[in-house]
Amino acid sequence: MGARQLEFSSWLSDRVHHTETVLERLLPEPGTVPGRLHQAMRYAVLGGGKRVRAMLAYAAGEVCLQAGTASTAQEMALDYAAAAVEIIHAYSLVHDDLPCMDDDTLRRGRPTVHVQFDEATAMLAGDALQPLAFELLAQMPIAPALIVQAVQILAHSAGSNGMAGGQAIDCESVGSMLTRDQLQTMHSMKTGAMLGASVLLGGVVAGASSSVRVSLESYAAAVGLAFQVVDDILDVTADTATLGKTAGKDAASDKPTYVSLLGLDGSRELLHSLREEAHAALLPLGAAAGRLGQIADFIVGRDR
Amino acid sequence: MGARQLEFSSWLSDRVHHTETVLERLLPEPGTVPGRLHQAMRYAVLGGGKRVRAMLAYAAGEVCLQAGTASTAQEMALDYAAAAVEIIHAYSLVHDDLPCMDDDTLRRGRPTVHVQFDEATAMLAGDALQPLAFELLAQMPIAPALIVQAVQILAHSAGSNGMAGGQAIDCESVGSMLTRDQLQTMHSMKTGAMLGASVLLGGVVAGASSSVRVSLESYAAAVGLAFQVVDDILDVTADTATLGKTAGKDAASDKPTYVSLLGLDGSRELLHSLREEAHAALLPLGAAAGRLGQIADFIVGRDR
Repeated sequence: MGARQLEFSSWLSDRVHHTETVLERLLPEPGTVPGRLHQAMRYAVLGGGKRVRAMLAYAAGEVCLQAGTASTAQEMALDYAAAAVEIIHAYSLVHDDLPCMDDDTLRRGRPTVHVQFDEATAMLAGDALQPLAFELLAQMPIAPALIVQAVQILAHSAGSNGMAGGQAIDCESVGSMLTRDQLQTMHSMKTGAMLGASVLLGGVVAGASSSVRVSLESYAAAVGLAFQVVDDILDVTADTATLGKTAGKDAASDKPTYVSLLGLDGSRELLHSLREEAHAALLPLGAAAGRLGQIADFIVGRDR
Repeated sequence: MGARQLEFSSWLSDRVHHTETVLERLLPEPGTVPGRLHQAMRYAVLGGGKRVRAMLAYAAGEVCLQAGTASTAQEMALDYAAAAVEIIHAYSLVHDDLPCMDDDTLRRGRPTVHVQFDEATAMLAGDALQPLAFELLAQMPIAPALIVQAVQILAHSAGSNGMAGGQAIDCESVGSMLTRDQLQTMHSMKTGAMLGASVLLGGVVAGASSSVRVSLESYAAAVGLAFQVVDDILDVTADTATLGKTAGKDAASDKPTYVSLLGLDGSRELLHSLREEAHAALLPLGAAAGRLGQIADFIVGRDR
């Protein structure tokens, strides 16, 4: 492992650990009423996950905040933004795993929330996580005008024109062949919107100018799509133990994927060009965007 | 019907009609992708409901905005706030009606969303309605600092310390006897929190001072509880056709209610004193709070 990669690995594990600590603190105490609900919320969010969305928020924040010059308030705001995107992601997994959706029993190597608790508690835990994310944004110690922008970005990305909408298209498209454009629309909503929101929130909180935001948005679009292409490839090539979730699920349920549309080789070619797009989008940002470039490589190269 | 009551009736039907028009406009178009999801969202929100939460927001706004002096921006912000609380309420009904919760097939005299569409679509419609409410608040044309307060109020009231938390306690308490304090805690979270948020949002948007907010909060606490006591009484005394939802449901499912705890007479006595509390809380606000007083009477006297 080269020195640069070692440094990135160490940053990554530091941020994963930090994110876990922040989430631990910001989630409701397991002992407070309603205890079972709070325990389910914590179970859903803590103890696992790649924390890709938090990483993106922190790395986008770094583009705008020179190392060592971030104020305590800005650092705290970044923590809250990173926690908010992880919480929205966690809620979406809880609901996706429910019997009326994917009916999955394994997530991050553990029983899914409705298996560990029960269906009603799993649904309510998801329902309660969502407003918690917005509450955290509202508590960020930054200018109210920036908070309003953050709320707008998160709400739009989580809603019917973003994540929830992509999920709905996914449900409707089971068993049907989508065109590449339709598949891309679905994924850009289902996964891309929240990955993009993570990048943008980091930028907004750190005071990104509008030209920086444009670069961040192009980067996020490429990385968001790349993330999904890798997911589709891993669903075919990895095993359940490595993934920590059920492998081969999409193929088994006859869901359209990049692999079913382009084949494995075609999917890998697409991945390669998306990685290049992501790096090209970062060029105007110079060295400050180095971390975002490393994350793009990490997402493309991940094996789970 | 006296002149005062006639005037209130006319205000009420005007506001119900206005709220419907506002929601019609603010919900996603049924023809835009994902169409089925957008249709389910509209089905869940439009065409029914007493719009009590919107009424409370408008009436609280009236306390602070002298008639005829509200700016267009303030009026628009009140519309968005009223829409937001109705949308959160609608999402909660969709999820409550799902098979893993109350498993109900009738709501507002029509098939529930999962019956009309399907379970996955109903869950996603609820999931997508929630961020829409926050997006609308973020779009209000008022000072960002007020928007941030509004987001905080709505998020807290909808989350695990508010509506979703009350719902969780409700699920856990089926078949067990709660004390009056426990029952009150549950209802103040499950129903009271969002009714209170409706009142407070109206006040915040209209620029209520902190002393006015204190009065609004006391009023909302009494009215929120009264609303639930009436619900419990109607569950026993009204029929399904009048209610537009299944009557006798709580008794049948062995849920603790005010009627099971205090009896019908005891519940009516409690209702009487809550009505007096609500009016007492409004005294410092003078004539401007007349509408809120009328709504308290309306809630206590409603038969569905």
